[in-house]
Amino acid sequence: MDTGRFGTDVYGERLRAATAATADAGLAGLVVTPGYDLRYLVGSRAQTFERLTSLVLPVDGEPTVVVPRMELAALKDSAVMELGLRVRDWVDGEDPYAMVAEVFGGGPVATAVTDAMPALHLLPLAEVLGTVPVLATAVLRRLRMIKDAAEVDALRKAGAAIDRVHARVPEFLVPGRSEADVAADIAEAIVAEGHSDVAFIIVGSGPNGADPHHECSDRVLQAGDVVVVDIGGPYEPGYNSDSTRTYSIGQPADDVAGRYAVLQRAQQAAVAVVRPGVTAEQIDAAARDVLAAEGLADAFVHRTGHGIGLSVHEEPYIVAGNDLPLEEGMAFSIEPGIYFPGSWGARIEDIVIVTSDGALSVNDQPRDLVVVPV
Amino acid sequence: MDTGRFGTDVYGERLRAATAATADAGLAGLVVTPGYDLRYLVGSRAQTFERLTSLVLPVDGEPTVVVPRMELAALKDSAVMELGLRVRDWVDGEDPYAMVAEVFGGGPVATAVTDAMPALHLLPLAEVLGTVPVLATAVLRRLRMIKDAAEVDALRKAGAAIDRVHARVPEFLVPGRSEADVAADIAEAIVAEGHSDVAFIIVGSGPNGADPHHECSDRVLQAGDVVVVDIGGPYEPGYNSDSTRTYSIGQPADDVAGRYAVLQRAQQAAVAVVRPGVTAEQIDAAARDVLAAEGLADAFVHRTGHGIGLSVHEEPYIVAGNDLPLEEGMAFSIEPGIYFPGSWGARIEDIVIVTSDGALSVNDQPRDLVVVPV
Repeated sequence: MDTGRFGTDVYGERLRAATAATADAGLAGLVVTPGYDLRYLVGSRAQTFERLTSLVLPVDGEPTVVVPRMELAALKDSAVMELGLRVRDWVDGEDPYAMVAEVFGGGPVATAVTDAMPALHLLPLAEVLGTVPVLATAVLRRLRMIKDAAEVDALRKAGAAIDRVHARVPEFLVPGRSEADVAADIAEAIVAEGHSDVAFIIVGSGPNGADPHHECSDRVLQAGDVVVVDIGGPYEPGYNSDSTRTYSIGQPADDVAGRYAVLQRAQQAAVAVVRPGVTAEQIDAAARDVLAAEGLADAFVHRTGHGIGLSVHEEPYIVAGNDLPLEEGMAFSIEPGIYFPGSWGARIEDIVIVTSDGALSVNDQPRDLVVVPV
Repeated sequence: MDTGRFGTDVYGERLRAATAATADAGLAGLVVTPGYDLRYLVGSRAQTFERLTSLVLPVDGEPTVVVPRMELAALKDSAVMELGLRVRDWVDGEDPYAMVAEVFGGGPVATAVTDAMPALHLLPLAEVLGTVPVLATAVLRRLRMIKDAAEVDALRKAGAAIDRVHARVPEFLVPGRSEADVAADIAEAIVAEGHSDVAFIIVGSGPNGADPHHECSDRVLQAGDVVVVDIGGPYEPGYNSDSTRTYSIGQPADDVAGRYAVLQRAQQAAVAVVRPGVTAEQIDAAARDVLAAEGLADAFVHRTGHGIGLSVHEEPYIVAGNDLPLEEGMAFSIEPGIYFPGSWGARIEDIVIVTSDGALSVNDQPRDLVVVPV
């Protein structure tokens, strides 16, 4: 479990910026239930579901937290109290949606809601507000996407920590051991190298590597396997690592080595075009074009990457159709992969941060196919 | 991690019943994203967030699963394939919301959505369907609330398992140990006694017991402490236990014993009125009235209980204002508590199942204040 947060002033500034962005969008306010947006805005890790906890940020009015009385204690670790936000607590039997509406006064109110808000709260809220809210994604995306210096620092530390784990992976990949055995060693290493928790571990050996979302199984490693290892976790105060390297147990077959070399060129081509002003889909195309030129277009079955921060997957998504121009401070994965069902797969993934004139990779481990001696 | 599910025929029957309930509600269909409703309907434990996975159950038409191609493998453990449901897989760049709309043909379509559906999917879906969906809670609540024989069996096994853990709790409550030490022992015992996982552990000693949602801390136990222990976890195939007992380290003070006796009467009074036709709020009132008569109304700061099944908290909620009449097969907690801030608290919780003429408690541990000798 990670528990930290930034200083209170950071959240004060974020609340001001979020309120300004809400006003710019022509909305009356923002309503945020537990999830990454709430954590971003006030450092709260509250996880309530059926009882409404929400931060209400009116453009005109006082920021207010509506919270079940029995959950008040959970706010102590957040910046809510130190920021002096108004707290409206409620007990079972009271109507928390009406409390949210009261913050805005009467009449239909146009609001934005966090993308994590469950239908359970969104639908009654829409009713009491008199209009269907819009997604806060558009309002918060620029704030959430562009990492400040403290966030970049956290992502770099997380990247260095997962690099140290990948440096140890070859010693875990011993023929006769199962993917699950390897995953258990990796889980220990992720925490030992400084992460506060494990977010995910993919160990895809042989044919399992051809499924991009395979996690791990009892399949036993054998000489000749190609193994995809995609791992990450949160690093205090909660920013995630996410890095993939591909390993070969013993020398790879020629066709594996040849195709892997194309993949490596594709990944580097995508990193090379990153700079402010280039669009997200251009990064995706840069990787895809290299693979397509070598007849591997159909082997690359997912998008090139995803933003990362408090959440492992967030904006910007590096995908065809996303014409978002990159800006300095954006952080995302570049992770093309090639998959041959029933046979093998490979993926290379780094997290990069957009700089004033290019990309900074938070991961430094070599990107070659790592040959594990047998 | 729990992984099991019931036989495929169970899910076939649930899909038929859910579709019939949807038609009865005058709706054109049901759209269910990952969460307990999806697990209830097809046994899927998928946990995707930003890429839409959904089960679409049209009243007229073929049940269809819309799923990212890279998540297809995750459906293997569910009943989707064996039931022969239509699967529409999609890749990044395609519009999964349009695929949902296609299942219904054109025009505005009135649908219900699972309460867990995040705004991220609900708002684009509302747009493409041309109407704002309603909560599926009303459509599915009766199905989800009324447990069949297999579900009752699972809840009873879970209850017996958590009883065995409570029987061992006194040996863990040694002065000088911290709440966290005790919680670690309880976590081991929960799994050792047959649960597939730990869902929650509350160890609230002394003043911490006065916060109903305190989890555990480094506070060290001492003679004279009253300790609230509220614990539970899923039992294959995923039905939860949840039971609270209160312990006294050494003989309790007279006022503690006296007030606890009132709480015990309140809990038993609520259990005693359970039978089909009585309303949820009448159960709540039965517990509250006993406490109020002894001047303890203000000490009971939460509802009397919550339904339980695949989810630890689900309908029916045993709370003032809920005039739902109980029916045979409903399962819920009865857990009044009394809380004295800065000093101590106590709670007694059993899970009961409504029978044809009363209540069956799945928990059998004595409900007295358990005195741990020092």
